Amino acid sequence: MEFHYPNGRKYGRPSSSSHFKNEAMKKHSYSNRGMTLEEDLNVTNEYYREQGIAIIHKKPTPVQIVQVHYPKRSAAVITEAYFKQPSTTDYNGVYKGKYIDFEAKETQSETSFPLRNFHEHQISHIEQVLKHGGISFVIIRFKSSDELYLLEGCHLLSFWARMVDGGRKSISKKELNQKGHLIPLQLAPRIDYLRIVDELYFS
Amino acid sequence: MEFHYPNGRKYGRPSSSSHFKNEAMKKHSYSNRGMTLEEDLNVTNEYYREQGIAIIHKKPTPVQIVQVHYPKRSAAVITEAYFKQPSTTDYNGVYKGKYIDFEAKETQSETSFPLRNFHEHQISHIEQVLKHGGISFVIIRFKSSDELYLLEGCHLLSFWARMVDGGRKSISKKELNQKGHLIPLQLAPRIDYLRIVDELYFS
Repeated sequence: MEFHYPNGRKYGRPSSSSHFKNEAMKKHSYSNRGMTLEEDLNVTNEYYREQGIAIIHKKPTPVQIVQVHYPKRSAAVITEAYFKQPSTTDYNGVYKGKYIDFEAKETQSETSFPLRNFHEHQISHIEQVLKHGGISFVIIRFKSSDELYLLEGCHLLSFWARMVDGGRKSISKKELNQKGHLIPLQLAPRIDYLRIVDELYFS
Repeated sequence: MEFHYPNGRKYGRPSSSSHFKNEAMKKHSYSNRGMTLEEDLNVTNEYYREQGIAIIHKKPTPVQIVQVHYPKRSAAVITEAYFKQPSTTDYNGVYKGKYIDFEAKETQSETSFPLRNFHEHQISHIEQVLKHGGISFVIIRFKSSDELYLLEGCHLLSFWARMVDGGRKSISKKELNQKGHLIPLQLAPRIDYLRIVDELYFS
C-alpha cells in the first residue's frame, strides 16, 4: 500500500532511507557538543534506570532483513536489509507504574517546528496511547538555539488536526512556549524530562 | 565485556546468531499450523489494537548496522549488519493505563521448560519492570503439544533464583501447571493472553 503525507511526500522506504541520511548528517552538525539528541536521551534513560527512577528504552531501528550469511565459527552477517517505517514512537517504558511513550525530533528551523517531522503512523499511535490511558508526549529540539521542549501528545494532536484542516503546517515557537514546557539541559540526567512529567501527571 | 550464562554458554554475538538460526528452523517445524508463536502473537496484538483493547507491539530485532549503501533513486540498502543481544523483552505496550511487558519462548521439550531460553539481560529487565509497578510475564509454548502458558514475572524470577542457587535448570510442567496459567488457543484473538491478565490484575 502506498500513501502520501499531507505535504505530498511519498510515505515508505525511500523516505525512511532519507531519514537515515538526515540522522547521519545530524551527528556531524551537532558536533559542538559532540552528542546527538538520541545519544543524550540514551544517556538520560540509562541514568533513570541506574538510579531506579524509570525503565525507559529506545526501540531498535526497524529493519527488513532479506539476506543473512552464516560463516562457519563466526557471527551471522546480515548482507541485505532495508529500513522500515516505524509503526510506533521511538521510546517507551514504565514510570511509577504508568506507561510512558514518546518521540524525539530535531529541527534546523529557528522559528517553528515543522509537523512533517512526524509520520502519520506515529500520530495515530500517540492518539491510541492516550486513549488507553498512557502518558504520551514529544521532545522537540531546536538545533540553532539548543532549546528543548516537552509537548504533551494531546497538544500535538490539536496542531496536527489544524494542519489536516488546512491550517499551518508547523508549530510556532510562541505556541510551543504557551503549550509546551522548556526542558533545561543539565549534567545528570542530561535531559530531565521526567521532572516535567512529574509536574504534569503526578502532582 | 564477555560473560557466560549459568550453563557456561558464551553470551554475545555468536549466541544471538545461533538464536536466529533456531528462529528460522522454527518456522519450518511449526508448519503444521503454518504460523510461528511470534506470528500468532503479532496477529493477536493487531486484533487487540483494532478492537481498541490494548496497544502492544513487538519490538524490532536489534541490529548493529555497519554499512549502508545509498543507490541513486532507490532505497538505502544495509549491506553489513549484525544481530545484537536484546536488552529488554520483546513485547510491550499499554493496557488499561498500565504498562505491560512480556517475552515469548518456545521449547521442543515435552516435560519441562529450560531456563537457558532466557538471557540474563531479560531476567533483570523483568525484575526492573516489576519494581516499577509494570505488569510482567512470559508466554511459554510447548511445541510438541501446542500448549501455551502464561507465567507471571515474579514466578519466573523465583525459578531463576533457584537455578542460580544450584537448583534445577528448568521449570517442570507440573510447576507450570501450579504457578502458570494455560492460555487456550482460539480463532480471534489467537492467543488471548489479556483475558488472563484481566483475571490476575484487574479483577
